[in-house]
Amino acid sequence: MALIVQKFGGTSVGTVERIQQVAEKVKKFRENGDDIVVVVSAMSGETNRLIDLAKQITDNQPVARELDVMISTGEQVTIALLAMALIKRGVEAVSYTGNQVRILTDNAHTKARILQIDDTRIRADLAAGKVVVVAGFQGVDEQGNITTLGRGGSDTTGVALAAALKADECQIYTDVDGVYTTDPRVVPRAQRLEKITFEEMLEMASLGSKVLQIRSVEFAGKYNVPLRVLHSFQEGPGTLITLDEEESMEQPIISGIAFNRDEAKLTIRGVPDVPGIAFKILGPVSGANIEVDMIVQNVAHDNTTDFTFTVHRNDYQNALQVLEKTASELGAREVIGDTNIAKVSIVGVGMRSHAGVASRMFEALAKETINIQMISTSEIKVSVVIEEKYLELAVRALHTAFELDAPAKRTE
Amino acid sequence: MALIVQKFGGTSVGTVERIQQVAEKVKKFRENGDDIVVVVSAMSGETNRLIDLAKQITDNQPVARELDVMISTGEQVTIALLAMALIKRGVEAVSYTGNQVRILTDNAHTKARILQIDDTRIRADLAAGKVVVVAGFQGVDEQGNITTLGRGGSDTTGVALAAALKADECQIYTDVDGVYTTDPRVVPRAQRLEKITFEEMLEMASLGSKVLQIRSVEFAGKYNVPLRVLHSFQEGPGTLITLDEEESMEQPIISGIAFNRDEAKLTIRGVPDVPGIAFKILGPVSGANIEVDMIVQNVAHDNTTDFTFTVHRNDYQNALQVLEKTASELGAREVIGDTNIAKVSIVGVGMRSHAGVASRMFEALAKETINIQMISTSEIKVSVVIEEKYLELAVRALHTAFELDAPAKRTE
Repeated sequence: MALIVQKFGGTSVGTVERIQQVAEKVKKFRENGDDIVVVVSAMSGETNRLIDLAKQITDNQPVARELDVMISTGEQVTIALLAMALIKRGVEAVSYTGNQVRILTDNAHTKARILQIDDTRIRADLAAGKVVVVAGFQGVDEQGNITTLGRGGSDTTGVALAAALKADECQIYTDVDGVYTTDPRVVPRAQRLEKITFEEMLEMASLGSKVLQIRSVEFAGKYNVPLRVLHSFQEGPGTLITLDEEESMEQPIISGIAFNRDEAKLTIRGVPDVPGIAFKILGPVSGANIEVDMIVQNVAHDNTTDFTFTVHRNDYQNALQVLEKTASELGAREVIGDTNIAKVSIVGVGMRSHAGVASRMFEALAKETINIQMISTSEIKVSVVIEEKYLELAVRALHTAFELDAPAKRTE
Repeated sequence: MALIVQKFGGTSVGTVERIQQVAEKVKKFRENGDDIVVVVSAMSGETNRLIDLAKQITDNQPVARELDVMISTGEQVTIALLAMALIKRGVEAVSYTGNQVRILTDNAHTKARILQIDDTRIRADLAAGKVVVVAGFQGVDEQGNITTLGRGGSDTTGVALAAALKADECQIYTDVDGVYTTDPRVVPRAQRLEKITFEEMLEMASLGSKVLQIRSVEFAGKYNVPLRVLHSFQEGPGTLITLDEEESMEQPIISGIAFNRDEAKLTIRGVPDVPGIAFKILGPVSGANIEVDMIVQNVAHDNTTDFTFTVHRNDYQNALQVLEKTASELGAREVIGDTNIAKVSIVGVGMRSHAGVASRMFEALAKETINIQMISTSEIKVSVVIEEKYLELAVRALHTAFELDAPAKRTE
């Protein structure tokens, strides 16, 4: 008998029919003998409806404390509906708001952080054979004010509850059936991963794979809560995200290929190659609240050097202005910008124990005559910047080169 | 500086515009230097929308505990919106759910009763100059379960808070500008009462005058909370409901004329005039869960008597069946039913100190040749049953006879 925390998002509980389906699913687990805690979000659309009301009342400036009082009602409705749907099916169930559980948070309204969870009530209910339905996304501060955790907060609630209860697994139900080796829209032979580590998942997520919120993966990693991503309305084992790196002897070197088109590249050419030049260039950029991702400084030539970095495309125009000002101050030769780039990354903990992974990546790209513009590496990731038009080609080539392709599909 | 509890119902907070109007009104009171606690209901329609969802999920059998979790969100949204609207106007305000105040109730979900109110938090906020906005209709039981008080519960919350805080007045805002001497649709010269006692108000309410919920009037009387009925969106002093009977020397004998068409009359004729006969007749009626209002037993004649009583019209058919069974068991002569009746009552604490009020009533009706079918009296009320078609005539005649008519209206 396992203790499982199951989290269903707004789309999974978006209609009366879907709530009934979720109840059926929970019932099956319960009948298998598992202890179940369910975390739910507001029905899809409800949070936005409430925020709209608040904006109408306040000319777009709702007070954060009162906004939390209001939007927390979205999840409160869902927990009651799901508990009713379970009880109607003969499954003993009880619902709790964040305050009722006592999910204690700090008082940063609309983006609070969980400090502590009181598990007394939930444990007593589980011991009495009940399914416990908990409102995601919300908590209460020391003074008893209602707080919310911000976007993706229901995932965090699920993971935090699983950690507090030392649950065997935290299952995140979503609209995909797991984490894939890469985006199946780009590589039809992409495969669902049985397993991936927290570290890899974080790299995949930060590189644009949107299955899970980064914060909840970090949280799960920190407390070593096994996390499983599953499809809400299809059967299947999903993808398990754990600490464990070593269980399988046949673990692939690379777990997945991530990519994004969200970045732009800026180059400042012919700057004096003196100590502190990197700070002189990047200081004003971060001073303008622009985040820099990859950075490359060329080998100096005639006492001058070139300096290249990437920013989010939304920040491109601002960054260009800042950089042109810096260039004229430093007497640089020129500033060049390029938005037609893409970033492709290979991610895998297997890299740690396998040499030559990067060169195998470069070889695969060279075979397709794709020019690499920038390179950046971490312990479990190699990223390259290439011309955007080669993105799909690069991802497919790498997917094949690292033996991630699924066997040719049977016609069913 | 007074401490005032103001209660606004679902219609008064039914739209964003109306919530803004309520905020304006509260702001004016606050600027006058009064301490204000506002109790609000759910936006009109919201509670029914939620109940519909629950019914859809459960095939019309929602679990009471979970229903309370859900429908209590209606008021929770309104308190946040009103607090936001006040803050936007520069009025310091804070919202509380029933649980946050700690309005402690029993655990009778969907019809809970208030046991105790913790005033610590509210007093601290008032002392800090804040308007406190409290969710009506809801509370929390000893175990921390969310409860609701049933229909009209927001009035009860208002009165209970006023009692706990020893407020100077509890103002109930509604869609009428006060309590009238009788229904102005029947008597255009009906007048708004400046003042009425709790007892009178209870009689008026139980006789069909729907301005206030009986339960909240009882509560206000018990704790001697001055209650004022006012119009939400019109200026005016409304009607004050208090204990005080004696303040004015010129208090009228009769405060109002109440009436209803909700009853039906049943007569069993020729029953043996023996001890216990009333119980033999009415026992089976109340055994069928039918409430009996007025009862008259005729003087016996030839050792038999006639027995007449009234029930709600909805219970008429059931009562008739029960009575016919009883009649055949008792060997009664016949059973007669009549649904074309109306009840008219004069209500006033002035009756206590004035003799001859009843005969003045009968005289007024006799002048209009209206036949009285039944009479029932209490300390502050005389009720008569008459043929329904004379109802309006009777009410107008009594309104004039007891000098309740307003001066002839000026053309404005």
